[in-house]
Amino acid sequence: KMLRRVLCTVLLVGALPSFAEVTHGHISVVLLGATGDLAKKYLWQGLFQLYMDQVSNGHSFTFHGAALTALEPGQKLMFDVLKKLACPPDEPPNRCAVLKDQFLKLSQYHQLKTAENYTVLNKEIETLLRQEGLKEAGRIFYFSVPPFAYTEIARHINSSCRPPPGAWLRVVLEKPFGHDLESAQQLAAELMSFFREEEMYRVDHYLGKQAVAHILPFRDQNRQFLDPIWNRHHVERVEIVLKETVDAKGRTSFYEQYGVIRDVLQNHLTEALMFLTMELPANVSKAEEVLQCKLQAFQSLRGLEKHSAVLGQYQAYASQVQEELQKAQDYISTTPTFAGVLIHSDSLRWEGVPFLLASGKALDERVGYVRVLFKNRAYCTQSETLRDAEHSQCKAKQIIFYIGHGALNTPAVLVSRNLFRPVMPGGSWKEAVGLSGLRVFGQPLSDYYVYSPVKERDAYSILISNIYHGRKDFFITTENLLASWRFWTPLLESISHQPLRLYPGGVENQNLLDFEMVSGEVAFTVSEPVELLNSDRLMPSDYKSIQSRFRQKPLVSAWPEDLISQLASDVEETAHRAVAHSGQFHLALSGGSSPVVLFQRLARHHYAFPWKHTHIWLVDERCVPLTDTESNFFSLHKHLLQNVRVPYFNVHPMPVHLNQRLCVEEDRGTELYAKEIMALVANASFDLVLLGVGVDGHTASLFPQSENGLEGAQTVVLTESPVKPHQRMSLSLPLINKARQVFVLVLGKGKHNITTLLSRAGHQPRKWPVSGVSPSSGQLVWYMDYEALLG
Amino acid sequence: KMLRRVLCTVLLVGALPSFAEVTHGHISVVLLGATGDLAKKYLWQGLFQLYMDQVSNGHSFTFHGAALTALEPGQKLMFDVLKKLACPPDEPPNRCAVLKDQFLKLSQYHQLKTAENYTVLNKEIETLLRQEGLKEAGRIFYFSVPPFAYTEIARHINSSCRPPPGAWLRVVLEKPFGHDLESAQQLAAELMSFFREEEMYRVDHYLGKQAVAHILPFRDQNRQFLDPIWNRHHVERVEIVLKETVDAKGRTSFYEQYGVIRDVLQNHLTEALMFLTMELPANVSKAEEVLQCKLQAFQSLRGLEKHSAVLGQYQAYASQVQEELQKAQDYISTTPTFAGVLIHSDSLRWEGVPFLLASGKALDERVGYVRVLFKNRAYCTQSETLRDAEHSQCKAKQIIFYIGHGALNTPAVLVSRNLFRPVMPGGSWKEAVGLSGLRVFGQPLSDYYVYSPVKERDAYSILISNIYHGRKDFFITTENLLASWRFWTPLLESISHQPLRLYPGGVENQNLLDFEMVSGEVAFTVSEPVELLNSDRLMPSDYKSIQSRFRQKPLVSAWPEDLISQLASDVEETAHRAVAHSGQFHLALSGGSSPVVLFQRLARHHYAFPWKHTHIWLVDERCVPLTDTESNFFSLHKHLLQNVRVPYFNVHPMPVHLNQRLCVEEDRGTELYAKEIMALVANASFDLVLLGVGVDGHTASLFPQSENGLEGAQTVVLTESPVKPHQRMSLSLPLINKARQVFVLVLGKGKHNITTLLSRAGHQPRKWPVSGVSPSSGQLVWYMDYEALLG
Repeated sequence: KMLRRVLCTVLLVGALPSFAEVTHGHISVVLLGATGDLAKKYLWQGLFQLYMDQVSNGHSFTFHGAALTALEPGQKLMFDVLKKLACPPDEPPNRCAVLKDQFLKLSQYHQLKTAENYTVLNKEIETLLRQEGLKEAGRIFYFSVPPFAYTEIARHINSSCRPPPGAWLRVVLEKPFGHDLESAQQLAAELMSFFREEEMYRVDHYLGKQAVAHILPFRDQNRQFLDPIWNRHHVERVEIVLKETVDAKGRTSFYEQYGVIRDVLQNHLTEALMFLTMELPANVSKAEEVLQCKLQAFQSLRGLEKHSAVLGQYQAYASQVQEELQKAQDYISTTPTFAGVLIHSDSLRWEGVPFLLASGKALDERVGYVRVLFKNRAYCTQSETLRDAEHSQCKAKQIIFYIGHGALNTPAVLVSRNLFRPVMPGGSWKEAVGLSGLRVFGQPLSDYYVYSPVKERDAYSILISNIYHGRKDFFITTENLLASWRFWTPLLESISHQPLRLYPGGVENQNLLDFEMVSGEVAFTVSEPVELLNSDRLMPSDYKSIQSRFRQKPLVSAWPEDLISQLASDVEETAHRAVAHSGQFHLALSGGSSPVVLFQRLARHHYAFPWKHTHIWLVDERCVPLTDTESNFFSLHKHLLQNVRVPYFNVHPMPVHLNQRLCVEEDRGTELYAKEIMALVANASFDLVLLGVGVDGHTASLFPQSENGLEGAQTVVLTESPVKPHQRMSLSLPLINKARQVFVLVLGKGKHNITTLLSRAGHQPRKWPVSGVSPSSGQLVWYMDYEALLG
Repeated sequence: KMLRRVLCTVLLVGALPSFAEVTHGHISVVLLGATGDLAKKYLWQGLFQLYMDQVSNGHSFTFHGAALTALEPGQKLMFDVLKKLACPPDEPPNRCAVLKDQFLKLSQYHQLKTAENYTVLNKEIETLLRQEGLKEAGRIFYFSVPPFAYTEIARHINSSCRPPPGAWLRVVLEKPFGHDLESAQQLAAELMSFFREEEMYRVDHYLGKQAVAHILPFRDQNRQFLDPIWNRHHVERVEIVLKETVDAKGRTSFYEQYGVIRDVLQNHLTEALMFLTMELPANVSKAEEVLQCKLQAFQSLRGLEKHSAVLGQYQAYASQVQEELQKAQDYISTTPTFAGVLIHSDSLRWEGVPFLLASGKALDERVGYVRVLFKNRAYCTQSETLRDAEHSQCKAKQIIFYIGHGALNTPAVLVSRNLFRPVMPGGSWKEAVGLSGLRVFGQPLSDYYVYSPVKERDAYSILISNIYHGRKDFFITTENLLASWRFWTPLLESISHQPLRLYPGGVENQNLLDFEMVSGEVAFTVSEPVELLNSDRLMPSDYKSIQSRFRQKPLVSAWPEDLISQLASDVEETAHRAVAHSGQFHLALSGGSSPVVLFQRLARHHYAFPWKHTHIWLVDERCVPLTDTESNFFSLHKHLLQNVRVPYFNVHPMPVHLNQRLCVEEDRGTELYAKEIMALVANASFDLVLLGVGVDGHTASLFPQSENGLEGAQTVVLTESPVKPHQRMSLSLPLINKARQVFVLVLGKGKHNITTLLSRAGHQPRKWPVSGVSPSSGQLVWYMDYEALLG
């Protein structure tokens, strides 16, 4: 009844379109959590803006606020908010006052708690539409509620509140969308049982920030300038940063569960990252093409590891948590309030370019930006002092999408003047003036072309408008969301017990949170202040590698990291000696997990390694195609070969897959490999064979009691493993023992038993094949970490 | 007689060592060209310095100036020079005066013109030594003469002036050492017929510059700091620069033949480059180890091409040449007086790091430096304005070997304070003070640790001392010299008719000589001033690719560069379509020279190419091992595969070399390849086959009248080529015609005849195999440059 009156009133306002003109039908907006913080702060204002913008454009509206609160108090709470709605500066005050009045009349509060409440709401909407003779266009349900309530509400909407056929349903969801990949998948699966993908609008309000939303259009409209430089050859680094001065006080019950990575990096900064790194679709306004390209960009991201991030926590956080969450005095929070993360994309376009994401609370300033810094490609012959500074190509070149706040205090797009004058859509962006005294990102503002929005708009009003227009590309699809969690979850897991750097907050932080990139990882630049250190603690450098003997042979022992570093150096030295001696280095490598760290070390730290002259052989292989993830060669390829430049001709995988068949005797793969070795390796004597040891004493793929390979003339053999995949190909012990050098790598506590047994055992290859490794004229060295050696 | 008196006089000077203490023997120094410019300016002073330094250390000396001038006038000329010898500031004036007096008495002029003159000189030396009862230690012959005189003098020395057995001979040679690789080889061969390698001391006086000479010791003494950062991951760029304000006036007869590259880059700057890029030998003072590492560093340099350099000539040069060399008014000199060159090393350490070498005459300032700029690896969380600037890791990090002149006006080593405090040998380098007001390389001098020599020494006095001490590592060996010419000669040849940018000289040059790196090449940053342009000239962009038809199929025609660029884009587009369609892209590539430019274009410009999902197949192969330079696969590997990341598993060379045998029928390589295609390529239908056309109309390795491959069921065949190597493996026409897309690339005037014939011919595969290319359901496109199409 009330609604009817409201709609009638609208009809009476002569300045507004009569229903005769309204042909597009009616839209019902239901705001769940209508009295909550977000609704108060942004959503109602956004809905009012939508109403002002669209009231003349052919749709009629009703707005339904809903919450768990009972009708009377809820109504009061909600209308207290609505009365405070502001008129935007560009709206004529008269029109705005009239519209606000109408907006209030079109708005209604509902208690939505039980299934019945939803049924009632649905009936009311139906009744109203029938009474007014309106065709229903669609319904928007905006979930501004905690995520635990999602499923219940979704179930009710799906069962009782769907619009009739022909009208659309749009449900708008606010983060958090899960806590990690698993919970996100679960939540997504639940939602998918109630809604179709196209019905769901997951909000990341950063996609409503004008500078972020303009990244893709900017790349599209400036293709002519960016095409040649938007790649690893020209981009030096990218920074995606959101700094806050506020802390988490008053919000710790939420924050303590999420922390800065889940709160800011996984969503907001990642979306900006994707807009920068994705390949541009032919048509940037096609949501599907954009999504496809975005998903591909996710695929190219290199996995994060523990040392991909530096983490901090402002000092007052602990006591805030203790107080707000009633924790004990000795409660220690491991929630980071600051994070700096280094991300790499392995796409050909971006390989090697560092993407730095950083965000934190209680920092020195509030600012958000996406900064692309280009390499300096120029050499200026004239000396600095005599240079025409204005046009110098030797000045920094950057493109900055300035999200807001900070020195500029407005969203902006900045392009260095020595780069190009960008194409900007004149209707929405204008050249900024009157900011000339400022310096930003190391340069006076006059070094840039600076554009700011013609009309600065709040993110939520943009997002609500996009929901209304069905612009799904401004929202996070399920696939997009899960891709992001898939990327972030391993890091979140690996850092859950990582120490946090404490920082005082504000400008007092000084350089305590500066961090640096070192070999694909990050670390804080200055070491932890002395008073925080336990000075009794042994420093890693106190542990030096121990040199002694094991089974009458040289033994190198150390903590794993030092051990691998020593082993890698020794491998390189052996390589140089071999190349100096014969022009080639024949290296036979084992499968398994232990060598992976060695491969990574070699790829990342040994720039002088003579890869061009190195031949890579396999010690053993599983009888699976080389492209199978179980294949030793596949792992070798992934961790070493694809990162260094061994000529194709010098790579010798075992022929376990001849004629599309696996290790079939009559295909004579073992003979073929033996022949290849004979043809290329002088005396079939490898320069270096790298072996491991299994808990059963196996080495290569020579297992205890093996019929083949422990003795005899055969150099390459087929064997059987007790574990899957059973079939193996392996070099034989006699061939291994012809090598000039054999290194055996043993890592981890799990190997302590076998090393203890081996330390006492003699030459018993049938029992423990590795005990048969005894180069006839070469050298054998054991590399064992302390755990393998000492337990 | 005169000499005897001189030596007796020496004995009478009580303050000096008596001959009783002289036990190391006598050294005769013969300076050829004793009255020339270099001798006047540096060499006599250097010899005097040697005498002052060594007179008390156990050797006796005589100094023999020699020239073509007759005795009397020569003597006068020479002694006029000697009388002007300066006493260094750190030498007590009394001692210096006495020593200078003795030095003059130990010096003698000789006319050395005929063979007899040399015999006489030899006799005089022998006589003197006999008379004085001196043992001969060795003889130094310093060639300060034009290179055309080298052979003649060398012959005379070898035949008449060699010291007796037990004493050494050192001949010192001044550049130029040839004009290109061939002339350098010839000169080297001639010299080698007279002297042993260890007898020759080729001077590059840059190796005597204190800052240059300290590069290797610096790297050695600071290994702990440099080891982790002296590589492509940390170094942003390196600049090696020698700028002069003087021009070539008065020296054009020399300069016009050589130019800036031969005068400065091939020798001085290249030596500095080598000291930076070479791997550090275990012992940097072992000349042999240093040389070996240096030669390896030469091997890693990527070959230079025409566009590796930008060249200029100061405007007055032309008239100076016309005047000094009596050339006609319309004589045009193509000699560059300015060059900027971009060099890349393909070592794993330096891959991708730009090394910029620049030198020129008539520039704005005189200065020489070697500058290593490190990447900024830090992110500073605190905002700029609040940062503690002193220690900020966000400031530039550089190491500069400052050769001299310029703002500092002293040799120096500069290390950014945010890098490390370097280890410097206290005896020879000290921290510089009192230069604090200066800015160098973009930063105040206070940002650096600055070291300057304790005693600033002239390069020649250092070199002469090194000759005396037999420090061969400060000189250029024959191998080193030829390696350098081998590197520079291709560039010198390719630029011999390159246009030069004219520059006014001095500060007026402004940014006219600034240059930029673009995809591994360099170009001047600002375009040629308008008045110098011929505005009638057609610009490359005026030639657009023409689309029409050839043999009823689409034809793309353009100038070669545009054609290749279009073809590469079309290949990439085809790849994306295939990957979108099936997840894979099966690409079959032909051998020959035409595709090489395409491969290079793809590797350098197509970052978004889906290589990870691309399978590479060969259209045809020569029956040679894959490692043979004649192999199609070898060329494909060199120009494409080693520069992009196609997984090993996706690369499918033709099996022409099974069981170490070449294309033996019974090894059934064709069957094997056919099977592999069947297993991996759906319907054996390649996504794209790239073909070429021979002048005889062959395509793939399908030659006219071929018995195999033109028809029938066989998909992979062995064929015979009319040219060597005769045996080939090839895809058959029927298989090619199953492809979804076939591109035929035809380049060059040489192909015009066959394209004319083909344009009129029908389907005649036995006569012209390429006329049989006609995809049954796929598309065929011809790519021809204008010369192939229009002649």
